Amino acid sequence: MTVHSPQVWKDLATQFRADSIRSTTAAGSGHPTSSMSGAELMAVLLAEYLRYDFDDPHNLRNDRLIFSKGHAAPLLYALYKAAGAITDDEMLTLRKFGSRIEGHPTPALPWVDVATGSLGQGLPTGVGMAYSGKYFDKLPFKVWVLLGDSEMAEGSVYEAFELAGHYNLDNLVAIIDMNRLGQRGPTMLEWHGETYAARARAFGWHAIQVDGQDADAVNAAYAEAVTVTGKPVCIVAKTQKGAGVSFLANKEGWHGKALSAEDEKKALAELGNPRGDLRVKPQPPRPGDVSPVEHEAHFVPPKFELGAKVATREAYGEALVAVGAVRSNVIVLDGEVSNSTFADKFKKAYPDRFIEVYIAEQQLVSAAVGLQALQKIPYASTFAAFLSRAFDQIRMAAISRANINLCGSHCGVSIGEDGASQMALEDLAMIRSVHGSTVLYPSCATTTGHLVAQMATRKGIKYLRTTREKTPVLYGPDESFPIGGCKVLRKSDSDVACLIAAGITLHESLKACDALAKEGINVRVIDLYSVKPIDGATLKEAAKECGGKLFVVEDHWPEGGLGDAVLEVFDGTSEAHPSVTRLAVRSMPTSGKPEELLAAAGIDAAHIIQAVKSGV
Amino acid sequence: MTVHSPQVWKDLATQFRADSIRSTTAAGSGHPTSSMSGAELMAVLLAEYLRYDFDDPHNLRNDRLIFSKGHAAPLLYALYKAAGAITDDEMLTLRKFGSRIEGHPTPALPWVDVATGSLGQGLPTGVGMAYSGKYFDKLPFKVWVLLGDSEMAEGSVYEAFELAGHYNLDNLVAIIDMNRLGQRGPTMLEWHGETYAARARAFGWHAIQVDGQDADAVNAAYAEAVTVTGKPVCIVAKTQKGAGVSFLANKEGWHGKALSAEDEKKALAELGNPRGDLRVKPQPPRPGDVSPVEHEAHFVPPKFELGAKVATREAYGEALVAVGAVRSNVIVLDGEVSNSTFADKFKKAYPDRFIEVYIAEQQLVSAAVGLQALQKIPYASTFAAFLSRAFDQIRMAAISRANINLCGSHCGVSIGEDGASQMALEDLAMIRSVHGSTVLYPSCATTTGHLVAQMATRKGIKYLRTTREKTPVLYGPDESFPIGGCKVLRKSDSDVACLIAAGITLHESLKACDALAKEGINVRVIDLYSVKPIDGATLKEAAKECGGKLFVVEDHWPEGGLGDAVLEVFDGTSEAHPSVTRLAVRSMPTSGKPEELLAAAGIDAAHIIQAVKSGV
Repeated sequence: MTVHSPQVWKDLATQFRADSIRSTTAAGSGHPTSSMSGAELMAVLLAEYLRYDFDDPHNLRNDRLIFSKGHAAPLLYALYKAAGAITDDEMLTLRKFGSRIEGHPTPALPWVDVATGSLGQGLPTGVGMAYSGKYFDKLPFKVWVLLGDSEMAEGSVYEAFELAGHYNLDNLVAIIDMNRLGQRGPTMLEWHGETYAARARAFGWHAIQVDGQDADAVNAAYAEAVTVTGKPVCIVAKTQKGAGVSFLANKEGWHGKALSAEDEKKALAELGNPRGDLRVKPQPPRPGDVSPVEHEAHFVPPKFELGAKVATREAYGEALVAVGAVRSNVIVLDGEVSNSTFADKFKKAYPDRFIEVYIAEQQLVSAAVGLQALQKIPYASTFAAFLSRAFDQIRMAAISRANINLCGSHCGVSIGEDGASQMALEDLAMIRSVHGSTVLYPSCATTTGHLVAQMATRKGIKYLRTTREKTPVLYGPDESFPIGGCKVLRKSDSDVACLIAAGITLHESLKACDALAKEGINVRVIDLYSVKPIDGATLKEAAKECGGKLFVVEDHWPEGGLGDAVLEVFDGTSEAHPSVTRLAVRSMPTSGKPEELLAAAGIDAAHIIQAVKSGV
Repeated sequence: MTVHSPQVWKDLATQFRADSIRSTTAAGSGHPTSSMSGAELMAVLLAEYLRYDFDDPHNLRNDRLIFSKGHAAPLLYALYKAAGAITDDEMLTLRKFGSRIEGHPTPALPWVDVATGSLGQGLPTGVGMAYSGKYFDKLPFKVWVLLGDSEMAEGSVYEAFELAGHYNLDNLVAIIDMNRLGQRGPTMLEWHGETYAARARAFGWHAIQVDGQDADAVNAAYAEAVTVTGKPVCIVAKTQKGAGVSFLANKEGWHGKALSAEDEKKALAELGNPRGDLRVKPQPPRPGDVSPVEHEAHFVPPKFELGAKVATREAYGEALVAVGAVRSNVIVLDGEVSNSTFADKFKKAYPDRFIEVYIAEQQLVSAAVGLQALQKIPYASTFAAFLSRAFDQIRMAAISRANINLCGSHCGVSIGEDGASQMALEDLAMIRSVHGSTVLYPSCATTTGHLVAQMATRKGIKYLRTTREKTPVLYGPDESFPIGGCKVLRKSDSDVACLIAAGITLHESLKACDALAKEGINVRVIDLYSVKPIDGATLKEAAKECGGKLFVVEDHWPEGGLGDAVLEVFDGTSEAHPSVTRLAVRSMPTSGKPEELLAAAGIDAAHIIQAVKSGV
């Protein structure tokens, strides 16, 4: 039994087409034809299957709708209009400066959970949401993801297929709008729907092939989809790009092009000049009990003995357990290296709040983005070097205004024998360049614990860089580590230079400082545990008090890391500008012992001593 | 008819196991058990199927062997030893500082074409090689890629599967060493070989399942593989991690662990204490004609009229054609946006030297890496924002000492209406942080042409950032643009500041300069077309001659881009340190017209004028 008549579906699809043309022609750009192919798919979904309260988008019982093919945004906005969420006038502000009706969907609109537009990311994000619904919230909502067929070339889509299949996410429905045409011509598979279906099945999904322009058939496909249990569902819908208008349908050369006013008139006439006032309220969300988030105010950080040797990566694992103890919505994800990142400590303590994502870093980050959209606090970890696999996902997470916590272990040459492929030497540059990001780099287990706790509630993309090697605990448990601060670890009235470092190089700097002091050369040492934001005041003070000589020592390439972060503090400064000398990794590292590699890179205590002596 | 007896295969496999144990125990770390599972697979391959001249690794007729599971490096080195390429003594320097026998394979060894160790990259690189062999060189070599089953979770593997299937790469053989155990426990599919096989078939491959510990069966599988035409072949080999030694075989907790001396003794005894002196010379490469690379010394750059409005992205396309005309080994690849990047100009001119990689940016970069290993000069393009999808591949390309050319179009907010998801605002940070990279950012069509030509022969990872909008041609055709240089476009004896910019913001800077001049305020303007390496001398001179006031204007986040590049020039400087003011994008952009977005970001002429007036 359907709620609306098949005629309503068809009228709605026609209105979606007309609106997609109208908004893009008004904008003078955009993707009308990519929107038109999915008209019936979205019409039937809105009218019959989507369970959603547009007045309460953050209701955890709502279904979720993600346009993985973000360029079909005009169709999404037409749907929002039909649902009564936006007016026709607002819809027609598409792509205009100051409008929240952007060229690709962003959470400027409250019904958009995650920004899309970089292809192949909507489904992996949906996997995170579906996992949350099935296993954490245990609510009966569905996650609907509309995909383009071009994006089926992205590997990230198959990471989503495999994980959703592995975890039996039967609350997830992927709808492939197989319109055969990509940006510059035919897709790889064109209309070979059986191949997409075979792939979906090979990844453990239930696949349904359907004529996506036949509203009745689409209804039947959804009706089948919602009854499937134990497997996610992939609907492969054969469609035509520009369907519904003769001079657009299945024609090359129309990707991402708005119609002229004249063509618009012709197209709308062909569509019967729909009045555009059809409104279809979706069904309300299914009932279900939303468990309250339990949150104790009192956080007990893990305790470490001063001077004991503890790797910050291990402290990360202990801190996760401590944070997990006070916040029931903390979820930990790892990319099949949890015994190296120490995320496995959390897994042991809270197995029901841990997701094994296997070696699929793009999916790892996208799942975290999906989880935070459903009010979870995700911490996702892998080797720092391999987070580079998910840079596009991290970039898009910032556009999604997502709040996610990332931890990258095994940074720098100090990992030793495994060699360059496993060494993160560009991770600071990568995450510093993400808008609104927070970059943390603890040198001590105590610091790590406090930072991990603060990450939980901080907004944006937060990154913690941890070290493989064991290093001495520098601070007692009651020390505080505000994000944006730093610690002055050595200081005298006669400092001739200041060493600024974090992680393994901070320990080398301390050794260097103590050795220099024996020779009567006093240097200040700053623990730059917060790289972004950075403590400009303390650095400026150090520059002033230490003869204007700063030495930044980092286990990272010279570009984009601590050195650049320190220099930003002095933007626009001239007379008082300190001399900044960078000690960083400048040649390709090899295998070797950590101490050999630190020496080879010129960032060990001996090289710091030498640099200070020749530079002051 | 096989060349060696089955007993030789078995003895060789035993020797590989023993050597994998010996070298890792000597190193005190490494992955013996991940090596042992693949012993028969590599023994039979070396003895019977690999056509390779170890004395001439760069022979284009050679088969290629890639260890996508780079952590099985001890097995690879054992193979090299058995082939007589390295001695036992050298093999035992595994993971030691100064040795070329690194923890993961790198081209420090001449038989290693590409570095591996970041999983899921070997097969995509092999796709590039196989494409080259089949379509460009038309030589009958095979590309053999050994994969781990854990890395079958990486989306990049499926990008390779789909592209190899699409292009019928029947010279490519993927061998999945399905040993069931990942780093921290079982893989997603464990021993469900039929699922891997079904996936391979769904991507258009011929799949063979085999007991990977049965050398005779492995031989039969290879025999079948080499006869398949029209399809790549995937051998799914059921193996045991640590196979051959009772206390290691199929046991958890042994990933990435070397045996103690005592355990080594036990293990070698179980293996019959092989003498280790078995040497097996592989068959020579198959005969075939290697076409000489045609290279004309005289490059005729595309000509553009001074003042004409031409987008640098369009000039890129024209320059590719010009470079392609003088170098027969230039290959262009694009990620299904060639009509936007203008790579399609090359496609039209040289369709046989163009590869459509579809929307699979990881595969795009990996294919380029594979091509350059076979002496091609690849240029790979997509939207600059989407190159972030392949950051890990780019990072690994640097470790591979690869020479590849990347072009990212549609940088910055100036792309306009499409919105933030399509805007590259972190690409300079990303590629600057890659070791040995070259970062170029032309502001004019003429410059673009000259830079594209120079990229052809320059070593390392080279990146060209192009702009969507049309901008005036600034230079005549005879101007030269050395990499590492810059252009002083406006200069007077009374410059009170220097504007440093590239791309769209250079044009805004020129407008600002001319407007300021009318008010009697002279500023210098520098076209920083070469961001890395950077012209330190000219910048230092400008700092000195322009009152120590530098304004860096960039369509990029403040982190990691032009501003940081300029500051590096003044490392270690103090008295003469200029004041550097950055005008960069500091809030999340939206849709809008390019000029609206440049204004909103504070990087248009009006904001530059304002900044100069308040800053000098």
